[in-house]
Amino acid sequence: MTVFHHTFKIQSGMRPSIQDVTEQVEQALAESRIVDGILVVFSQHTTCSVLIQEASDDLDYWGTDFLMQDLVGVLEKIIPTCRTQGQYLHPGPEHIKAALGRDELPSWSLNTDAHLRSVLLGRSVTIPVEGGKAVLGDFGRIYFADFDQVRERERNVRVQIIGE
Amino acid sequence: MTVFHHTFKIQSGMRPSIQDVTEQVEQALAESRIVDGILVVFSQHTTCSVLIQEASDDLDYWGTDFLMQDLVGVLEKIIPTCRTQGQYLHPGPEHIKAALGRDELPSWSLNTDAHLRSVLLGRSVTIPVEGGKAVLGDFGRIYFADFDQVRERERNVRVQIIGE
Amino acid sequence: MTVFHHTFKIQSGMRPSIQDVTEQVEQALAESRIVDGILVVFSQHTTCSVLIQEASDDLDYWGTDFLMQDLVGVLEKIIPTCRTQGQYLHPGPEHIKAALGRDELPSWSLNTDAHLRSVLLGRSVTIPVEGGKAVLGDFGRIYFADFDQVRERERNVRVQIIGE
Repeated sequence: MTVFHHTFKIQSGMRPSIQDVTEQVEQALAESRIVDGILVVFSQHTTCSVLIQEASDDLDYWGTDFLMQDLVGVLEKIIPTCRTQGQYLHPGPEHIKAALGRDELPSWSLNTDAHLRSVLLGRSVTIPVEGGKAVLGDFGRIYFADFDQVRERERNVRVQIIGE
Repeated sequence: MTVFHHTFKIQSGMRPSIQDVTEQVEQALAESRIVDGILVVFSQHTTCSVLIQEASDDLDYWGTDFLMQDLVGVLEKIIPTCRTQGQYLHPGPEHIKAALGRDELPSWSLNTDAHLRSVLLGRSVTIPVEGGKAVLGDFGRIYFADFDQVRERERNVRVQIIGE
Repeated sequence: MTVFHHTFKIQSGMRPSIQDVTEQVEQALAESRIVDGILVVFSQHTTCSVLIQEASDDLDYWGTDFLMQDLVGVLEKIIPTCRTQGQYLHPGPEHIKAALGRDELPSWSLNTDAHLRSVLLGRSVTIPVEGGKAVLGDFGRIYFADFDQVRERERNVRVQIIGE
Protein backbone atom coordinates (compact mmCIF):
# COMPACT_ATOMS: atom_id res chain seq x y z
CA MET A 1 0.00 0.00 0.00
CA THR A 2 1.40 3.38 -1.02
CA VAL A 3 0.51 7.02 -0.46
CA PHE A 4 1.50 9.30 -3.32
CA HIS A 5 1.19 13.05 -3.44
CA HIS A 6 1.74 15.52 -6.19
CA THR A 7 1.08 19.26 -6.41
CA PHE A 8 0.94 21.36 -9.55
CA LYS A 9 0.15 24.99 -10.17
CA ILE A 10 -2.37 26.75 -12.38
CA GLN A 11 -2.91 30.41 -13.14
CA SER A 12 -6.34 32.01 -12.82
CA GLY A 13 -7.64 35.32 -14.13
CA MET A 14 -10.14 37.95 -12.97
CA ARG A 15 -13.24 36.05 -14.04
CA PRO A 16 -14.50 32.81 -12.49
CA SER A 17 -12.05 30.36 -14.07
CA ILE A 18 -12.83 26.65 -14.40
CA GLN A 19 -9.93 24.74 -15.92
CA ASP A 20 -9.67 21.14 -17.10
CA VAL A 21 -6.85 19.49 -15.12
CA THR A 22 -7.57 15.87 -16.07
CA GLU A 23 -4.30 15.42 -17.92
CA GLN A 24 -2.14 16.62 -15.04
CA VAL A 25 -4.04 14.35 -12.64
CA GLU A 26 -3.69 11.34 -14.93
CA GLN A 27 0.04 11.99 -15.25
CA ALA A 28 0.36 11.99 -11.45
CA LEU A 29 -1.55 8.71 -11.30
CA ALA A 30 0.74 7.11 -13.90
CA GLU A 31 3.79 8.32 -11.98
CA SER A 32 2.44 6.85 -8.72
CA ARG A 33 2.26 3.35 -10.24
CA ILE A 34 -0.81 2.76 -8.09
CA VAL A 35 -3.21 0.34 -9.79
CA ASP A 36 -6.07 0.01 -7.30
CA GLY A 37 -7.10 2.60 -4.77
CA ILE A 38 -8.60 6.03 -4.52
CA LEU A 39 -7.51 9.39 -5.85
CA VAL A 40 -8.32 12.74 -4.26
CA VAL A 41 -7.98 16.05 -6.11
CA PHE A 42 -8.04 18.80 -3.51
CA SER A 43 -8.07 22.59 -3.29
CA GLN A 44 -6.34 24.11 -0.28
CA HIS A 45 -7.73 27.52 -1.30
CA THR A 46 -10.99 28.67 0.26
CA THR A 47 -12.28 30.37 -2.89
CA CYS A 48 -11.66 27.36 -5.16
CA SER A 49 -13.40 24.06 -5.86
CA VAL A 50 -12.70 20.81 -7.65
CA LEU A 51 -15.45 19.18 -9.68
CA ILE A 52 -16.14 16.52 -12.29
CA GLN A 53 -18.11 17.39 -15.38
CA GLU A 54 -18.39 16.66 -19.07
CA ALA A 55 -16.48 18.85 -21.52
CA SER A 56 -19.29 20.40 -23.55
CA ASP A 57 -17.43 21.04 -26.86
CA ASP A 58 -18.42 24.71 -27.29
CA LEU A 59 -16.58 27.72 -25.83
CA ASP A 60 -17.99 31.20 -25.22
CA TYR A 61 -16.29 34.45 -26.31
CA TRP A 62 -14.08 34.34 -23.20
CA GLY A 63 -12.96 30.80 -23.95
CA THR A 64 -15.11 29.29 -21.20
CA ASP A 65 -16.80 25.95 -21.78
CA PHE A 66 -20.57 26.46 -22.30
CA LEU A 67 -21.57 24.13 -19.47
CA MET A 68 -19.14 25.82 -17.08
CA GLN A 69 -20.51 29.24 -18.02
CA ASP A 70 -24.02 27.89 -17.34
CA LEU A 71 -22.76 26.79 -13.92
CA VAL A 72 -21.41 30.29 -13.28
CA GLY A 73 -24.81 31.66 -14.37
CA VAL A 74 -26.60 29.54 -11.78
CA LEU A 75 -24.12 30.56 -9.08
CA GLU A 76 -24.55 34.24 -10.02
CA LYS A 77 -28.29 33.92 -9.41
CA ILE A 78 -27.99 32.36 -5.97
CA ILE A 79 -24.74 33.99 -4.80
CA PRO A 80 -24.38 37.30 -6.69
CA THR A 81 -20.90 38.66 -7.37
CA CYS A 82 -19.81 40.88 -4.47
CA ARG A 83 -19.48 44.38 -5.93
CA THR A 84 -19.53 46.58 -2.87
CA GLN A 85 -19.09 46.44 0.90
CA GLY A 86 -22.31 45.92 2.79
CA GLN A 87 -23.67 43.54 0.16
CA TYR A 88 -22.67 40.65 2.42
CA LEU A 89 -21.62 40.77 6.09
CA HIS A 90 -18.12 39.62 5.09
CA PRO A 91 -15.62 41.29 4.88
CA GLY A 92 -16.03 43.02 8.24
CA PRO A 93 -13.74 45.58 9.91
CA GLU A 94 -11.61 43.00 11.75
CA HIS A 95 -11.05 41.11 8.53
CA ILE A 96 -9.92 44.26 6.72
CA LYS A 97 -7.57 45.09 9.58
CA ALA A 98 -6.04 41.59 9.35
CA ALA A 99 -5.78 41.86 5.55
CA LEU A 100 -3.98 45.20 5.78
CA GLY A 101 -1.53 43.53 8.17
CA ARG A 102 -0.78 41.05 5.37
CA ASP A 103 -0.23 43.95 2.91
CA GLU A 104 -3.43 43.09 1.03
CA LEU A 105 -5.57 45.78 -0.58
CA PRO A 106 -8.94 46.09 1.21
CA SER A 107 -10.78 45.51 -2.08
CA TRP A 108 -9.16 42.06 -2.39
CA SER A 109 -11.45 40.96 0.44
CA LEU A 110 -14.55 41.66 -1.66
CA ASN A 111 -14.48 38.02 -2.75
CA THR A 112 -17.31 36.87 -0.49
CA ASP A 113 -19.14 35.37 -3.47
CA ALA A 114 -16.09 33.20 -4.24
CA HIS A 115 -15.87 31.90 -0.68
CA LEU A 116 -19.57 30.99 -0.69
CA ARG A 117 -19.62 29.49 -4.19
CA SER A 118 -16.61 27.31 -3.45
CA VAL A 119 -18.16 25.88 -0.30
CA LEU A 120 -21.34 25.01 -2.18
CA LEU A 121 -19.40 23.06 -4.82
CA GLY A 122 -16.90 21.51 -2.41
CA ARG A 123 -13.15 21.38 -2.00
CA SER A 124 -12.34 18.04 -3.57
CA VAL A 125 -13.36 15.05 -5.63
CA THR A 126 -12.61 11.44 -4.69
CA ILE A 127 -12.32 9.01 -7.59
CA PRO A 128 -11.90 5.22 -7.61
CA VAL A 129 -8.72 3.94 -9.27
CA GLU A 130 -9.09 0.60 -11.03
CA GLY A 131 -6.55 -1.08 -13.28
CA GLY A 132 -4.33 1.98 -13.08
CA LYS A 133 -7.04 4.34 -14.34
CA ALA A 134 -9.21 6.93 -12.63
CA VAL A 135 -12.79 5.78 -13.28
CA LEU A 136 -14.23 8.85 -15.00
CA GLY A 137 -16.61 7.12 -17.40
CA ASP A 138 -16.77 8.06 -21.07
CA PHE A 139 -17.18 11.80 -20.57
CA GLY A 140 -15.98 12.79 -17.10
CA ARG A 141 -13.27 15.44 -16.83
CA ILE A 142 -11.76 16.93 -13.68
CA TYR A 143 -12.00 20.72 -13.33
CA PHE A 144 -10.34 23.13 -10.92
CA ALA A 145 -12.49 26.22 -10.35
CA ASP A 146 -11.16 29.51 -9.02
CA PHE A 147 -14.16 31.73 -8.24
CA ASP A 148 -12.10 34.69 -7.00
CA GLN A 149 -12.73 37.65 -9.32
CA VAL A 150 -10.77 40.35 -7.51
CA ARG A 151 -7.27 39.41 -8.62
CA GLU A 152 -5.23 36.99 -10.70
CA ARG A 153 -3.82 34.13 -8.69
CA GLU A 154 -1.42 31.23 -8.91
CA ARG A 155 -3.14 28.24 -7.34
CA ASN A 156 -2.01 24.86 -6.04
CA VAL A 157 -3.86 21.75 -7.15
CA ARG A 158 -3.18 18.78 -4.90
CA VAL A 159 -3.44 15.14 -5.90
CA GLN A 160 -3.34 12.46 -3.20
CA ILE A 161 -3.48 8.80 -4.20
CA ILE A 162 -3.68 5.86 -1.84
CA GLY A 163 -3.64 2.25 -2.94
CA GLU A 164 -1.42 -0.52 -4.19
CA MET B 1 -4.64 -3.39 3.69
CA THR B 2 -7.03 -4.22 0.85
CA VAL B 3 -8.67 -2.34 -2.00
CA PHE B 4 -12.05 -3.73 -2.97
CA HIS B 5 -14.24 -2.60 -5.84
CA HIS B 6 -17.71 -3.51 -6.86
CA THR B 7 -20.03 -2.11 -9.55
CA PHE B 8 -23.75 -2.63 -9.81
CA LYS B 9 -26.39 -1.27 -12.16
CA ILE B 10 -29.62 0.59 -11.62
CA GLN B 11 -32.33 1.66 -14.04
CA SER B 12 -33.59 5.25 -14.12
CA GLY B 13 -36.69 6.71 -15.73
CA MET B 14 -37.66 10.01 -17.36
CA ARG B 15 -38.11 11.94 -14.13
CA PRO B 16 -35.36 12.86 -11.68
CA SER B 17 -34.85 9.49 -9.98
CA ILE B 18 -33.27 9.18 -6.53
CA GLN B 19 -32.93 5.56 -5.47
CA ASP B 20 -31.90 4.04 -2.15
CA VAL B 21 -28.84 1.84 -2.80
CA THR B 22 -27.82 1.26 0.84
CA GLU B 23 -28.47 -2.46 0.71
CA GLN B 24 -26.31 -3.03 -2.37
CA VAL B 25 -23.49 -1.01 -0.82
CA GLU B 26 -23.69 -2.89 2.47
CA GLN B 27 -23.57 -6.19 0.60
CA ALA B 28 -20.40 -5.07 -1.17
CA LEU B 29 -18.88 -4.09 2.17
CA ALA B 30 -19.72 -7.49 3.68
CA GLU B 31 -18.19 -9.23 0.66
CA SER B 32 -14.99 -7.16 0.96
CA ARG B 33 -14.40 -8.40 4.53
CA ILE B 34 -12.91 -4.98 5.29
CA VAL B 35 -13.47 -4.06 8.94
CA ASP B 36 -11.81 -0.65 9.25
CA GLY B 37 -11.33 1.84 6.47
CA ILE B 38 -13.28 4.11 4.18
CA LEU B 39 -15.94 3.43 1.61
CA VAL B 40 -16.60 5.56 -1.47
CA VAL B 41 -19.82 5.36 -3.48
CA PHE B 42 -19.19 7.05 -6.81
CA SER B 43 -21.04 8.06 -9.95
CA GLN B 44 -19.06 7.98 -13.18
CA HIS B 45 -21.99 9.67 -14.95
CA THR B 46 -21.96 13.46 -15.26
CA THR B 47 -25.72 13.86 -14.76
CA CYS B 48 -25.84 11.73 -11.59
CA SER B 49 -24.97 12.25 -7.91
CA VAL B 50 -24.57 10.17 -4.79
CA LEU B 51 -25.89 11.49 -1.51
CA ILE B 52 -26.74 10.50 2.06
CA GLN B 53 -30.13 11.34 3.47
CA GLU B 54 -32.83 10.04 5.78
CA ALA B 55 -35.64 7.95 4.33
CA SER B 56 -38.68 10.09 5.05
CA ASP B 57 -41.37 7.34 5.25
CA ASP B 58 -43.90 8.96 2.86
CA LEU B 59 -43.97 8.58 -0.92
CA ASP B 60 -45.60 10.90 -3.45
CA TYR B 61 -47.92 9.75 -6.28
CA TRP B 62 -44.88 8.89 -8.42
CA GLY B 63 -43.36 6.75 -5.66
CA THR B 64 -40.72 9.34 -4.80
CA ASP B 65 -39.73 9.85 -1.17
CA PHE B 66 -41.17 13.15 0.13
CA LEU B 67 -37.78 14.54 1.17
CA MET B 68 -36.26 13.66 -2.19
CA GLN B 69 -39.12 15.37 -4.01
CA ASP B 70 -38.53 18.44 -1.82
CA LEU B 71 -34.90 18.30 -2.92
CA VAL B 72 -35.99 18.17 -6.56
CA GLY B 73 -38.28 21.14 -5.84
CA VAL B 74 -35.35 23.20 -4.55
CA LEU B 75 -33.22 22.22 -7.53
CA GLU B 76 -36.03 23.13 -9.93
CA LYS B 77 -36.10 26.66 -8.47
CA ILE B 78 -32.37 27.27 -8.81
CA ILE B 79 -31.66 25.19 -11.93
CA PRO B 80 -34.92 24.96 -13.92
CA THR B 81 -35.53 21.90 -16.11
CA CYS B 82 -34.13 22.53 -19.59
CA ARG B 83 -37.13 22.55 -21.91
CA THR B 84 -35.82 24.25 -25.01
CA GLN B 85 -32.57 25.20 -26.71
CA GLY B 86 -31.34 28.68 -25.82
CA GLN B 87 -32.50 28.36 -22.22
CA TYR B 88 -28.89 27.60 -21.26
CA LEU B 89 -25.74 28.05 -23.37
CA HIS B 90 -25.26 24.27 -23.39
CA PRO B 91 -25.83 22.34 -25.64
CA GLY B 92 -24.08 24.37 -28.34
CA PRO B 93 -23.67 23.55 -32.04
CA GLU B 94 -20.36 21.70 -31.61
CA HIS B 95 -21.87 19.55 -28.88
CA ILE B 96 -24.83 18.63 -31.09
CA LYS B 97 -22.47 17.77 -33.94
CA ALA B 98 -20.48 15.47 -31.62
CA ALA B 99 -23.69 13.90 -30.28
CA LEU B 100 -24.95 13.18 -33.81
CA GLY B 101 -21.61 11.47 -34.46
CA ARG B 102 -22.45 9.14 -31.54
CA ASP B 103 -25.91 8.44 -33.05
CA GLU B 104 -27.62 10.41 -30.27
CA LEU B 105 -30.80 12.39 -30.89
CA PRO B 106 -30.16 16.15 -30.58
CA SER B 107 -32.90 16.44 -27.94
CA TRP B 108 -30.98 14.04 -25.67
CA SER B 109 -28.51 16.88 -25.12
CA LEU B 110 -31.22 19.06 -23.54
CA ASN B 111 -30.14 17.71 -20.15
CA THR B 112 -28.22 20.81 -19.07
CA ASP B 113 -30.19 21.00 -15.83
CA ALA B 114 -29.09 17.46 -14.95
CA HIS B 115 -25.42 18.26 -15.53
CA LEU B 116 -25.65 21.35 -13.32
CA ARG B 117 -27.72 19.74 -10.58
CA SER B 118 -25.36 16.80 -10.33
CA VAL B 119 -22.32 19.01 -9.92
CA LEU B 120 -24.02 20.96 -7.14
CA LEU B 121 -24.76 17.76 -5.20
CA GLY B 122 -21.47 16.04 -5.96
CA ARG B 123 -20.33 12.80 -7.53
CA SER B 124 -19.65 10.68 -4.47
CA VAL B 125 -19.93 10.13 -0.75
CA THR B 126 -17.09 8.94 1.47
CA ILE B 127 -18.11 7.02 4.58
CA PRO B 128 -16.01 5.72 7.50
CA VAL B 129 -16.05 1.95 7.98
CA GLU B 130 -15.78 0.83 11.59
CA GLY B 131 -16.22 -2.69 12.93
CA GLY B 132 -17.27 -3.89 9.50
CA LYS B 133 -20.12 -1.36 9.21
CA ALA B 134 -20.51 1.85 7.22
CA VAL B 135 -21.13 4.55 9.85
CA LEU B 136 -24.47 5.94 8.68
CA GLY B 137 -25.98 6.79 12.05
CA ASP B 138 -29.52 5.77 12.96
CA PHE B 139 -31.20 7.23 9.89
CA GLY B 140 -28.66 7.69 7.09
CA ARG B 141 -29.32 5.99 3.77
CA ILE B 142 -27.25 6.15 0.59
CA TYR B 143 -29.04 7.42 -2.53
CA PHE B 144 -28.03 7.41 -6.18
CA ALA B 145 -29.64 10.29 -8.07
CA ASP B 146 -30.08 10.38 -11.85
CA PHE B 147 -31.20 13.89 -12.79
CA ASP B 148 -31.38 13.22 -16.53
CA GLN B 149 -35.00 13.62 -17.67
CA VAL B 150 -34.58 13.19 -21.42
CA ARG B 151 -34.29 9.42 -21.55
CA GLU B 152 -34.31 6.22 -19.50
CA ARG B 153 -30.86 5.01 -18.65
CA GLU B 154 -29.00 2.09 -17.15
CA ARG B 155 -26.45 3.50 -14.72
CA ASN B 156 -23.34 2.16 -13.01
CA VAL B 157 -22.93 2.65 -9.28
CA ARG B 158 -19.36 2.16 -8.13
CA VAL B 159 -18.27 1.15 -4.64
CA GLN B 160 -14.61 1.40 -3.69
CA ILE B 161 -13.49 0.28 -0.23
CA ILE B 162 -10.01 0.64 1.19
CA GLY B 163 -8.95 -0.67 4.57
CA GLU B 164 -8.10 -3.79 6.49
CA MET C 1 -0.68 1.33 6.67
CA THR C 2 -3.04 2.21 9.51
CA VAL C 3 -6.71 3.09 9.87
CA PHE C 4 -7.41 5.43 12.77
CA HIS C 5 -10.80 6.59 13.97
CA HIS C 6 -11.83 9.12 16.52
CA THR C 7 -15.23 10.54 17.46
CA PHE C 8 -15.91 13.65 19.47
CA LYS C 9 -19.07 15.46 20.45
CA ILE C 10 -20.26 19.02 20.00
CA GLN C 11 -23.36 20.80 21.26
CA SER C 12 -25.58 22.77 18.87
CA GLY C 13 -28.30 25.32 19.60
CA MET C 14 -31.59 26.36 18.04
CA ARG C 15 -30.08 28.43 15.24
CA PRO C 16 -28.01 27.08 12.35
CA SER C 17 -24.72 26.45 14.13
CA ILE C 18 -21.41 26.25 12.26
CA GLN C 19 -18.52 25.46 14.61
CA ASP C 20 -14.78 25.40 14.00
CA VAL C 21 -13.53 21.89 14.83
CA THR C 22 -10.04 22.19 13.33
CA GLU C 23 -8.27 21.82 16.64
CA GLN C 24 -10.06 18.62 17.61
CA VAL C 25 -9.34 17.15 14.16
CA GLU C 26 -5.67 18.09 14.33
CA GLN C 27 -5.40 16.50 17.76
CA ALA C 28 -6.84 13.27 16.38
CA LEU C 29 -4.32 13.37 13.53
CA ALA C 30 -1.42 13.87 15.96
CA GLU C 31 -2.67 10.96 18.06
CA SER C 32 -2.90 8.70 15.01
CA ARG C 33 0.82 9.18 14.21
CA ILE C 34 -0.12 8.96 10.53
CA VAL C 35 2.27 11.03 8.41
CA ASP C 36 1.02 10.47 4.86
CA GLY C 37 -2.51 9.62 3.88
CA ILE C 38 -5.99 11.04 3.81
CA LEU C 39 -8.26 12.34 6.52
CA VAL C 40 -12.05 12.29 6.39
CA VAL C 41 -14.23 14.39 8.71
CA PHE C 42 -17.74 13.00 8.54
CA SER C 43 -21.23 13.72 9.83
CA GLN C 44 -23.44 10.73 10.50
CA HIS C 45 -26.38 13.13 11.07
CA THR C 46 -28.66 13.88 8.14
CA THR C 47 -29.20 17.54 9.08
CA CYS C 48 -25.47 18.31 9.46
CA SER C 49 -22.57 19.03 7.11
CA VAL C 50 -18.81 19.31 7.26
CA LEU C 51 -17.08 22.04 5.28
CA ILE C 52 -13.78 23.88 4.88
CA GLN C 53 -13.73 27.65 4.92
CA GLU C 54 -11.66 30.62 6.04
CA ALA C 55 -12.29 32.10 9.49
CA SER C 56 -13.44 35.61 8.63
CA ASP C 57 -12.33 37.45 11.84
CA ASP C 58 -15.66 39.21 12.56
CA LEU C 59 -18.57 37.78 14.55
CA ASP C 60 -22.20 38.88 14.41
CA TYR C 61 -24.34 39.63 17.49
CA TRP C 62 -25.06 35.91 17.91
CA GLY C 63 -21.35 35.06 17.84
CA THR C 64 -21.53 33.61 14.33
CA ASP C 65 -18.62 34.18 11.96
CA PHE C 66 -19.62 36.76 9.28
CA LEU C 67 -18.84 34.44 6.37
CA MET C 68 -20.83 31.61 7.95
CA GLN C 69 -23.80 33.92 8.50
CA ASP C 70 -23.53 34.93 4.82
CA LEU C 71 -23.66 31.23 3.97
CA VAL C 72 -26.79 30.82 6.08
CA GLY C 73 -28.24 33.86 4.27
CA VAL C 74 -27.72 32.21 0.88
CA LEU C 75 -29.21 28.94 2.14
CA GLU C 76 -32.23 30.82 3.55
CA LYS C 77 -32.91 32.25 0.09
CA ILE C 78 -32.81 28.94 -1.73
CA ILE C 79 -34.12 26.64 1.03
CA PRO C 80 -36.28 28.77 3.37
CA THR C 81 -36.54 27.77 7.02
CA CYS C 82 -39.46 25.38 7.47
CA ARG C 83 -41.96 27.22 9.66
CA THR C 84 -45.17 25.29 9.13
CA GLN C 85 -46.44 21.98 7.81
CA GLY C 86 -47.34 22.06 4.13
CA GLN C 87 -44.43 24.34 3.27
CA TYR C 88 -42.54 21.27 2.04
CA LEU C 89 -43.89 17.77 1.35
CA HIS C 90 -41.79 16.41 4.22
CA PRO C 91 -42.70 15.65 6.99
CA GLY C 92 -45.68 13.58 5.84
CA PRO C 93 -48.18 11.61 7.92
CA GLU C 94 -46.20 8.37 7.92
CA HIS C 95 -43.10 10.21 9.09
CA ILE C 96 -45.00 11.83 11.96
CA LYS C 97 -46.42 8.44 12.96
CA ALA C 98 -42.88 6.99 13.02
CA ALA C 99 -41.57 9.98 14.98
CA LEU C 100 -44.33 9.62 17.60
CA GLY C 101 -43.28 5.98 17.94
CA ARG C 102 -39.82 7.25 18.88
CA ASP C 103 -41.33 9.63 21.48
CA GLU C 104 -40.43 12.66 19.36
CA LEU C 105 -42.64 15.75 19.28
CA PRO C 106 -44.28 16.20 15.85
CA SER C 107 -42.81 19.70 15.56
CA TRP C 108 -39.27 18.25 15.75
CA SER C 109 -39.87 16.93 12.23
CA LEU C 110 -40.27 20.46 10.86
CA ASN C 111 -36.54 20.44 10.05
CA THR C 112 -36.95 19.86 6.31
CA ASP C 113 -34.78 22.88 5.53
CA ALA C 114 -31.95 21.37 7.58
CA HIS C 115 -32.14 18.04 5.72
CA LEU C 116 -32.04 19.82 2.36
CA ARG C 117 -29.31 22.31 3.29
CA SER C 118 -27.08 19.58 4.62
CA VAL C 119 -27.33 17.52 1.46
CA LEU C 120 -26.43 20.54 -0.66
CA LEU C 121 -23.26 21.15 1.37
CA GLY C 122 -22.31 17.50 1.80
CA ARG C 123 -21.65 15.13 4.65
CA SER C 124 -17.86 15.16 4.76
CA VAL C 125 -14.55 16.65 3.71
CA THR C 126 -11.54 14.63 2.59
CA ILE C 127 -8.15 16.24 3.19
CA PRO C 128 -4.67 15.12 2.14
CA VAL C 129 -2.24 14.44 5.00
CA GLU C 130 1.37 15.25 4.22
CA GLY C 131 4.28 15.33 6.67
CA GLY C 132 1.89 14.70 9.54
CA LYS C 133 -0.26 17.74 8.75
CA ALA C 134 -3.70 18.14 7.16
CA VAL C 135 -3.11 20.31 4.09
CA LEU C 136 -5.46 23.21 4.79
CA GLY C 137 -3.43 26.02 3.24
CA ASP C 138 -2.84 29.29 5.06
CA PHE C 139 -6.47 29.99 5.89
CA GLY C 140 -8.51 26.79 5.72
CA ARG C 141 -10.46 25.76 8.80
CA ILE C 142 -12.75 22.75 9.23
CA TYR C 143 -16.34 23.50 10.28
CA PHE C 144 -19.14 21.25 11.47
CA ALA C 145 -22.55 22.68 10.60
CA ASP C 146 -25.78 21.69 12.34
CA PHE C 147 -28.67 23.19 10.37
CA ASP C 148 -31.41 21.81 12.61
CA GLN C 149 -33.27 24.73 14.21
CA VAL C 150 -36.03 22.86 16.00
CA ARG C 151 -34.06 21.65 19.02
CA GLU C 152 -30.67 21.65 20.71
CA ARG C 153 -28.63 18.57 19.94
CA GLU C 154 -25.48 16.77 20.93
CA ARG C 155 -23.74 15.72 17.72
CA ASN C 156 -21.01 13.23 16.82
CA VAL C 157 -18.14 14.37 14.64
CA ARG C 158 -16.23 11.48 13.13
CA VAL C 159 -12.61 11.57 12.01
CA GLN C 160 -11.26 8.69 9.93
CA ILE C 161 -7.59 8.70 8.89
CA ILE C 162 -5.94 6.18 6.62
CA GLY C 163 -2.26 6.18 5.78
CA GLU C 164 1.17 5.37 7.13
